Amino acid sequence: MKPEATAMVFMGSNTPFSETKIDLPELKDGELLVKTGYATICTSDLHTFYGRRHSCSHSILGHEIIGEIEKIAPGGVLDYHGNPLKTGDKVTWSVYAFDPDSHTSKKGFPQKSEGLYKYGHEQMNQQYKLNGGFASHCHLRKGTSVFKLPPSLSPAEAAPLNCTHATIAGAIRLAGNLHNKNVLINGVGMLGLSACAMAKEHGATKVWSQDINPEKSEQANAFGADKTFTFGKDHIGDSKENNGEIDVIIETSGSPEGIEKCIPLLSIGGTIILVGSVFPQRDISINAEYMVRNLLSVKGLHNYIPEDLANAIEFLKEAKFKYPFEKLVGIEFPLKELGKAFETGNKGKYYRVGIKP
Amino acid sequence: MKPEATAMVFMGSNTPFSETKIDLPELKDGELLVKTGYATICTSDLHTFYGRRHSCSHSILGHEIIGEIEKIAPGGVLDYHGNPLKTGDKVTWSVYAFDPDSHTSKKGFPQKSEGLYKYGHEQMNQQYKLNGGFASHCHLRKGTSVFKLPPSLSPAEAAPLNCTHATIAGAIRLAGNLHNKNVLINGVGMLGLSACAMAKEHGATKVWSQDINPEKSEQANAFGADKTFTFGKDHIGDSKENNGEIDVIIETSGSPEGIEKCIPLLSIGGTIILVGSVFPQRDISINAEYMVRNLLSVKGLHNYIPEDLANAIEFLKEAKFKYPFEKLVGIEFPLKELGKAFETGNKGKYYRVGIKP
Repeated sequence: MKPEATAMVFMGSNTPFSETKIDLPELKDGELLVKTGYATICTSDLHTFYGRRHSCSHSILGHEIIGEIEKIAPGGVLDYHGNPLKTGDKVTWSVYAFDPDSHTSKKGFPQKSEGLYKYGHEQMNQQYKLNGGFASHCHLRKGTSVFKLPPSLSPAEAAPLNCTHATIAGAIRLAGNLHNKNVLINGVGMLGLSACAMAKEHGATKVWSQDINPEKSEQANAFGADKTFTFGKDHIGDSKENNGEIDVIIETSGSPEGIEKCIPLLSIGGTIILVGSVFPQRDISINAEYMVRNLLSVKGLHNYIPEDLANAIEFLKEAKFKYPFEKLVGIEFPLKELGKAFETGNKGKYYRVGIKP
Repeated sequence: MKPEATAMVFMGSNTPFSETKIDLPELKDGELLVKTGYATICTSDLHTFYGRRHSCSHSILGHEIIGEIEKIAPGGVLDYHGNPLKTGDKVTWSVYAFDPDSHTSKKGFPQKSEGLYKYGHEQMNQQYKLNGGFASHCHLRKGTSVFKLPPSLSPAEAAPLNCTHATIAGAIRLAGNLHNKNVLINGVGMLGLSACAMAKEHGATKVWSQDINPEKSEQANAFGADKTFTFGKDHIGDSKENNGEIDVIIETSGSPEGIEKCIPLLSIGGTIILVGSVFPQRDISINAEYMVRNLLSVKGLHNYIPEDLANAIEFLKEAKFKYPFEKLVGIEFPLKELGKAFETGNKGKYYRVGIKP
C-alpha cells in the first residue's frame, strides 16, 4: 500500500472541510516531509473559513504548525542556523518559502519575495498538495527557514511561534531598543498578549495594554502588562499614568478607530507599529503636521523575516516559565473534527483552538 | 557711546519691520555674541510675516544665519566638536539652544527639548533681544551647537545650512542607507533641491523629483535629479520609469494631496519622510491594511539634531562644487531694506532672498 497523508481540505468559505487522502510526495532538492505534531487555528484561518477575507481553494489551511521530520530530500537540508537536519527532529518553520536571491529578498523583505509560497494559503496543485497545518503531514519546500524546537516547549506553546510570536518579534525589531521606553499594546488577542510579554522581556520600562473587551484587557496582567485599560471605560488617554510618555505602540486590533485614538497618545519621537490591519477596512485619518511637529513614525508590518522567528524561539524558551502561554490554547480537537474546532474558535472564547493530528 | 546693535524688529504680521537700536548684551556663561555675516529669508519667515502662521512679536525673524564671533563669555565656549571658539571665527549654529540634560534631549530629540530656545522665533525679553538673523548681531545662548564654517563656502551658500540643509540631513538619517535605493523628492523648493543633491551624494541609485510647478521641477536637474516630473502633466505614477521601485520619498511640499499620491508609489518596505507639513492643513487619508501588507513607513521630521547640521556642513563642502547652491540666493538686500526683501521673497521668484547686514 502506498503511504498516504490525511488532510482536511478547505473547499471554499462556509463549506465543510473535506477529509482527503493524499499520496506522500517525492521530495525534490532541499525539501522535507514533516509529520504534523500540532497546529493552532489562527484568527486569519477563521476569517478565511467564514468568508471575511478571500483565500483560494482547494487548499489546506493552518499555518501555525510544528512537526517532526519524517523524510529529507537526498543531499540533506540545513536548518536556519546552518546545521544539518535529521529525521525525528522536532521543528517549526517560517510561514513561507522564499527565494533568497530574489530582488525583494535581497532588499530585506523575504516575506514579500517574488514567487513566495505561504503555508496554509496556497491552492493545492499536482506537485504540492500538503501545504498547510490541518493535515497529517506538511511538505516543506526549498527556501523555508527551518528551526529545531527547544525540547522544553510543549506542542501547544510551540505551534503559534511561526505566526503570532514571530510577527511580534518583527514588531519589536521595528520598535528598536525598548530600554527606558514605555510601550502600549493596543488590542490584546493572541498577538497582543505575545507583544506584552515580549516588550517586557526586551526591557521596556512600562508595558500598558488596552482592549475594547474588559476580560481580554485583564488577561494582559498575566503576560507582563503593568497596567491594563479598557476602551470606553478607562481609555489610557484619560489616565494620569499616561503623561504623554508612550514611546512605542504595537497596534494589533486593526481597528481604524483604535489606530486614530492611539496616535495622539505617542510622546515626542514615538512610533506606532501596525500589525493588526490585515483585513479590509476604511482609511485612517492622520494629521501630517502633527506627525511632523511631534517627530512621529507609523510603520506597517506584515509577517516577518526568518531572524524574527529565531528571536521568537529564544524568547519563548525563557518566557514560557513566566507567562502562561500554554493556557492560551483553551481546547483541543482531533484533526477529523476540524469543522467543530472552527465553530468553537469562531465563538471567540479561546485565544487559540489546538488541532492534534 | 555704548556699543549698539541694529535690528529690524518684527512687530506683528503685515506690519512694517521697525528699525531698532539695541544695546549689546552682557554675556553669561557659555554665551557668544556673533556679528551677523549673512541671512536668508526662509519660507517660514514669509509665512510668519504674511500671517499664514502664528508667531509671537516683538521678535527678530531670520534663522538661516551665519556670522563672525565678536565676543565670547568669560570661561570660553567650545564648538560642537569640542574645540575652543575664538573671536573672528566664522560660524553657523543650530537653530535652537537646548538643554542636553533635559528629558527629551536624553531621549534623542534635542530639537523638542524642554525650555527650547529657537533663533528667529522667540519673543524679545529684557535679557535676550538679539535672537534672530535680521539684525547686525545675534546673541547665542548656552546649549547652542556652534560649528566653524569651511572657508570655501560663500555666505550665500552657508546661510541656509542651519535650516534647509540640516533638516534634509535629518531626513536622510531617517531614510537610512540609500545605496541600491531609488529616492523620490516630492516638492522641489529649497528643501527639495537640497534633498535631491544630498540623496545623490549619499549613494541613491536614482533620484527622481516631482513638483506641481514645471519650472521648479526642471531646476532639480541641476541638483542631482536623474529625472524630473510635473504633477498633473507627467506625474511619476504614470511613468514607465517607476516600476514600483521607489524605496524612499522625501516629502517637502506639505500638501495633503501630494502625500496621498506619493504613498502608493512606494515599493515594498518603502519609507516616506514628511518634512514639509509645517503649516495647518487637512488630515491625510491612509489605508492601514495597505501600509501593513506593503511594509510601509511614514516618518515625521521637524528640525534636526546637531549631528545633522554637522553632516550638512560636510555635505556642502563637497557638494558646492557640483551643484549651484549659491545661485539659489537670487537677489540680495541690505538689512535696512528688509521689508522690500520680504515683498520680493513673497513673490516666489527666488528660492532664497539674501540679507546683508
